[in-house]
Amino acid sequence: MTQQSPTTDSHNTLTPTLELAIDLMSRASVTPEDAGCQETMIKRLEKIGFTVEKMPFGDVKNFYAKRGNDGPNLCFAGHTDVVPTGPEAEWKVPPFEPQIIDGILYGRGAADMKGSLASMIIAVERFIDNNPNHKGQISFLITSDEEGPFVDGTTRVVDTLMARNEKVDWCIVGEPSSTNTLGDIIKNGRRGSFSGDLTVFGKQGHVAYPHLAKNPIHLASPAITELSETVWDQGNDFFPPTSFQVSNINAGTGATNVVPGTLNAQFNFRFSSELDFDSLKEKVISILDKHELNYEVDWTYNGLPFLTRPGELVDAITKAIEKTVDITPTLSTSGGTSDGRFIAKMGTQVVELGPINATIHQINEHIEANSLNQLTSIYEGVLENLFG
Amino acid sequence: MTQQSPTTDSHNTLTPTLELAIDLMSRASVTPEDAGCQETMIKRLEKIGFTVEKMPFGDVKNFYAKRGNDGPNLCFAGHTDVVPTGPEAEWKVPPFEPQIIDGILYGRGAADMKGSLASMIIAVERFIDNNPNHKGQISFLITSDEEGPFVDGTTRVVDTLMARNEKVDWCIVGEPSSTNTLGDIIKNGRRGSFSGDLTVFGKQGHVAYPHLAKNPIHLASPAITELSETVWDQGNDFFPPTSFQVSNINAGTGATNVVPGTLNAQFNFRFSSELDFDSLKEKVISILDKHELNYEVDWTYNGLPFLTRPGELVDAITKAIEKTVDITPTLSTSGGTSDGRFIAKMGTQVVELGPINATIHQINEHIEANSLNQLTSIYEGVLENLFG
Repeated sequence: MTQQSPTTDSHNTLTPTLELAIDLMSRASVTPEDAGCQETMIKRLEKIGFTVEKMPFGDVKNFYAKRGNDGPNLCFAGHTDVVPTGPEAEWKVPPFEPQIIDGILYGRGAADMKGSLASMIIAVERFIDNNPNHKGQISFLITSDEEGPFVDGTTRVVDTLMARNEKVDWCIVGEPSSTNTLGDIIKNGRRGSFSGDLTVFGKQGHVAYPHLAKNPIHLASPAITELSETVWDQGNDFFPPTSFQVSNINAGTGATNVVPGTLNAQFNFRFSSELDFDSLKEKVISILDKHELNYEVDWTYNGLPFLTRPGELVDAITKAIEKTVDITPTLSTSGGTSDGRFIAKMGTQVVELGPINATIHQINEHIEANSLNQLTSIYEGVLENLFG
Repeated sequence: MTQQSPTTDSHNTLTPTLELAIDLMSRASVTPEDAGCQETMIKRLEKIGFTVEKMPFGDVKNFYAKRGNDGPNLCFAGHTDVVPTGPEAEWKVPPFEPQIIDGILYGRGAADMKGSLASMIIAVERFIDNNPNHKGQISFLITSDEEGPFVDGTTRVVDTLMARNEKVDWCIVGEPSSTNTLGDIIKNGRRGSFSGDLTVFGKQGHVAYPHLAKNPIHLASPAITELSETVWDQGNDFFPPTSFQVSNINAGTGATNVVPGTLNAQFNFRFSSELDFDSLKEKVISILDKHELNYEVDWTYNGLPFLTRPGELVDAITKAIEKTVDITPTLSTSGGTSDGRFIAKMGTQVVELGPINATIHQINEHIEANSLNQLTSIYEGVLENLFG
């Protein structure tokens, strides 16, 4: 894998951040591929005194790297894998041949999240150059399976670290948290998520003989109504109220004169830090039982909610953003899940901070090239604020 | 098409009824095919003085035949088409090579309803032989599309007859009405049937952002609950209460993290003579509107209910059954629809009377061979009671 030569329209010299971002983005690391990204990062980290442990699990490459032996541990976390490109012909530039056009960096992973990885590395290089004997510990937790099944990625590394009582006090995940301008939003938590696959059993029959059949659509409907109308909680200062959604419902043979024998419905909870799996599951079961259904549910636990309350980490990040881009970030817990949920299991304060997320997972993923230079300054600022 | 030689186990001579039944059953007249059945019937009816009008519509063969010029008109109605055989290898005998084995007549159409057609023809031949100058009018209304879309069959013939003010006072439909023994049940009516295909519109979105989506499953569920719990009527002396059944419900993209944009549900009413299309449709609409749904419904009217109250026809049939097989028939309006619903539009008293229906539409359709000889005697008895 050799680095592509990006086209630049206004100048011929790239900043170190953009040079590294383009290097990483040139590697076609669709989940669970890493395509050499981690090796590139590892080499640079080793050069500045990090001790690196590779932790591959299955097809997934992961590493944990650390510099420093005592004091609080600030971890930069992220992933080298990217989502598939979609039809390459629809891209303005080949998705793994990144280019800067009119100041915009195009390519898969620009925002999610090879740009952040480049900013993290350069920020740490600069900080160590200025603070060779810094306070605290700086670490990296990098996976190649955040966009995929997330089974052999961060969660396995976290299990390993916990087993040996490694302490991670603070974590910045490089997920693209910004919405309209770099640094406007930082995510200080995420809702929990869990799903159920519900089968309601009735008895198949002919519509002309309804007394010989039991219609599972009729049986399930009042329970689904009650589930969809239930107020699960009121949320709290950081989370919106818990939300229940049925994503799929199916019953019927296709024939219009047959009462079906079973109904299948899939539902999902996004829940606040006021609730947990067990209390929600218990409440769902009590509603299904109340309606006297004959049913089965397969439960899938996707992740617990996590919440980082304002404090030292949030303060350090807020100040660094204010200093670099002159705006005060808003705290948010909205959106889908991220690997932050696994890291939070260690009791770590986790905050997500990265580029504008408007084009992630899309054709022509892009960000303003200079925003990565600013992100490097923000990450460096956080290090200065905590360990400088 | 030549007649098959049936195997008989106990004697070598078939009764005229069984001989004709086997002739008709040997013809592979899967809807809308007639395969020469009607021509066979027409030749015999013309021989005994019937005036026959062929009334083909589209692919469907129909005929109306009549003998006599004044007085009440008793019509024998039925169909020469049969349902498909299913896997022929699973049949005890080839489905269109009828055989009598141990006194049981096997073959497609034995019960539904070529056996009845044979009994009707032989009964009328005998009655006319004994009563060449009978009172009243005897007619036949035969179609080859009762098991199919029933668009070009009986309903078109009825329209034609109504257009010229042909009066049909009484009608015996040869549908297999008997349940445990020949003549135990006669159908003096059928429920009405109509269907709706409901689409409820929501707004597709991501389960993590429920406030940006409108879940049509959640929106529709309370309305479906109310529809399924509504008591539409109490039925009456002849009909069970009106029944509403959802036969199919579908919503969802398959993905568990997507709120679907639309929900589709198909429902069916079987309704008593207390109600009609318009009042039911209006009530469904008022329930959907009450739940403030954005929806569309495609309505399909399958047939109005009909009811023949006890009277001259039911009496004549009851006496003929009592005389022939020594049981008193029970009146019933249960089960699916039949062509009786179309004939009843003429103001005709319609009763269904035919063989045991236990094996209709199944592999190895069969009836007791002798029950067709008894059915001939019953039909002949009805003619004697009304016109003798």
